[in-house]
Amino acid sequence: MDSGRLQGYADLIVNTGINPDPGQDVVITAGFDQLDFVRLVAETCYRRGAGKVWFNWTDMPLEKLHCQYQTEARLGTWEAWEVEKWRWQAEKLPARIWLDSDDPDGMAGSDPEKRARAQMAKFPVIKPFRDAMENRHQWCIAAVPGEAWARKVFPGIAPTEAVERLWEAILAASRADGDAAANWREHNATIRRRADILNRHHFTALRYRAGNGTDFEAGLMAQGVFAGGAETDLAGRVFNPNIPSEEIFTTPRRGVAEGLLVASKPLSYQGSLIEDFSVRFAGGRAVEVRAARNQAVLEKMIVMDEGAAFLGEVALIAEDSPINRSGILFYNTLFDENASCHVALGRGFDMCVRDYARYSQDEIRALGVNDSMIHVDFMIGRDDLEIDGVAPDGGTVPIFRRGNWCF
Amino acid sequence: MDSGRLQGYADLIVNTGINPDPGQDVVITAGFDQLDFVRLVAETCYRRGAGKVWFNWTDMPLEKLHCQYQTEARLGTWEAWEVEKWRWQAEKLPARIWLDSDDPDGMAGSDPEKRARAQMAKFPVIKPFRDAMENRHQWCIAAVPGEAWARKVFPGIAPTEAVERLWEAILAASRADGDAAANWREHNATIRRRADILNRHHFTALRYRAGNGTDFEAGLMAQGVFAGGAETDLAGRVFNPNIPSEEIFTTPRRGVAEGLLVASKPLSYQGSLIEDFSVRFAGGRAVEVRAARNQAVLEKMIVMDEGAAFLGEVALIAEDSPINRSGILFYNTLFDENASCHVALGRGFDMCVRDYARYSQDEIRALGVNDSMIHVDFMIGRDDLEIDGVAPDGGTVPIFRRGNWCF
Repeated sequence: MDSGRLQGYADLIVNTGINPDPGQDVVITAGFDQLDFVRLVAETCYRRGAGKVWFNWTDMPLEKLHCQYQTEARLGTWEAWEVEKWRWQAEKLPARIWLDSDDPDGMAGSDPEKRARAQMAKFPVIKPFRDAMENRHQWCIAAVPGEAWARKVFPGIAPTEAVERLWEAILAASRADGDAAANWREHNATIRRRADILNRHHFTALRYRAGNGTDFEAGLMAQGVFAGGAETDLAGRVFNPNIPSEEIFTTPRRGVAEGLLVASKPLSYQGSLIEDFSVRFAGGRAVEVRAARNQAVLEKMIVMDEGAAFLGEVALIAEDSPINRSGILFYNTLFDENASCHVALGRGFDMCVRDYARYSQDEIRALGVNDSMIHVDFMIGRDDLEIDGVAPDGGTVPIFRRGNWCF
Repeated sequence: MDSGRLQGYADLIVNTGINPDPGQDVVITAGFDQLDFVRLVAETCYRRGAGKVWFNWTDMPLEKLHCQYQTEARLGTWEAWEVEKWRWQAEKLPARIWLDSDDPDGMAGSDPEKRARAQMAKFPVIKPFRDAMENRHQWCIAAVPGEAWARKVFPGIAPTEAVERLWEAILAASRADGDAAANWREHNATIRRRADILNRHHFTALRYRAGNGTDFEAGLMAQGVFAGGAETDLAGRVFNPNIPSEEIFTTPRRGVAEGLLVASKPLSYQGSLIEDFSVRFAGGRAVEVRAARNQAVLEKMIVMDEGAAFLGEVALIAEDSPINRSGILFYNTLFDENASCHVALGRGFDMCVRDYARYSQDEIRALGVNDSMIHVDFMIGRDDLEIDGVAPDGGTVPIFRRGNWCF
């Protein structure tokens, strides 16, 4: 990949993605697939004035070894210094960059139940720190092509060529070529215009229908707001948490969801690919899941904790989005979720409550924002999907027809 | 490289190198050059029964960025959680593996003085933990070929071929092929036999002469012992701290060293190559250094702290050692120090005092073991090097003639 285009992408991630303060620390989480690009992002952070750039290195083959050989008790335990590291992060509030390059099948063969139990055991320890960080720092998830991932997306060609094609697909989907900062200003303005229209309607629910059997309604919170694109943290810093990002989303009202959602794409969850699946809701809760492949992983996921069976997000993306028009199935949520309407099981977003900073965590929960250790998106968008908003007077307003925006 | 030979090398590092207890943790420090081998060593640790395998990832390009862009104050500061991590290590005493693949010129262009000052600022914080760990855990330094390193050792050939040749050279030097465990049992017995002879003489000093101007004498401690090959920690665990290891060494008596040592090979120190250099000693102290290249790095090194100008080690290696006979200059201390007689400036070894566990740290220092934050080897062996031991009655005993052992 051309070095000028890579620098442009690094600039986009640093300047538009996290937008760090002078002297602010940055934590980069990355694998070993594109080390030169990781180094370039680090240098771009420093040139932008970062105080110190830290790294969390991740590697699925090593994760598999840890899961296979460690006792479950050990796998589910933090050392004291690791807790201190979380505390430092919650106090220092570094900006965070994730450079995702994971193999979608990278955890195949690993025991998902053992991993899930260990994760559940560790979660309560760090939850106070994660809560304390919410909306208080900038973060950005972007992608770089790992070889195993590229071979999955582009099978049957030479690995180096597959990596190059995945670079092209990532840069195109991320609107990273040309004047990327200007692309993102314009793109964010379009998202803002549509979100403003949705918010002016004060919908009480969204209704979904599609030819694959989807027939579903999710209640919305009276104080709920639709958001998308750039976000603003409590210190007033504007950042873009996802590159790419096409979605306009809100957190639905916990406990109000009925009917069947049929997934339109596979879900890659912790290295397992869940295929041809559906989720039935009653009283807001996922009460039944079916999957042609890896149903057990899905069943395990929704009982991870009390909130894992409730929705945390509904997101609207047009079928004519650049990612969807590319025709590429990325096997990666960051892209596939931005190709298609989706929902997420698990934790909701405080920021989808109007003036959320005025409320305590308990009040946020009482308003209907679900809490969980998970937040897992799955796709429901199709070219025959229709979505209506239910207005306070009971009337309906068309939002999507034939998979695309009505405004 | 053949996978069977790599597994043999991993087994050597784990079983003969660190020899972990069942359930003991292992910390692997490695770069990104040979990830498949790093993963293989991790799995070998787990199969041997390690409790948890941890990683410290190192990368010279990132180290250079940190040094270039961080303020010196920041570069010289530990976060609280990092100190907690040192405390954990000093209490838990994991076995440690270093897989060195560093580019000998990897830090070129970086500011050695800034790095040295930052290192000096950080050292006092962790010194108590390092002291507490000494002789209480097993550790092993071994090497894997990094591409930049391989190209330096084998210039003018294709990088992949250079890496393959460096693998061959590493495995040969490490006696890793065939029954590596048996090779090492035999090798350690030879080292033991020679060390026992040296120890029976109770030498008061070593005298060095060579045709390049070396004319030098170092005093030995009355309680000093020569060691080499396998070591035994205070818990009675036998381990091999260096793979390869050809040397028989002791810590000389601090304050007693006179004359000129002329280096016979370049010294790679923190990514800078110091070439054609000599060190003059008076009263045990390095009082003058000269170098054709990077003299400033050397001058900085010997004033790092109070003990950096005093010797911590003298080591005896035959010119007919396998590494030296290979004719390869590795530009890496682990190999080059095992090709040739050398000395080290800086910290000495407690374990070179007979029954060291009976003495306090203050008593160890009073006996003549130097203390410093550095321990840097440089080579003085040549095919005309003569070494004599000075006996308690003032007579001399030949130890080396024409660069090789007399017994």
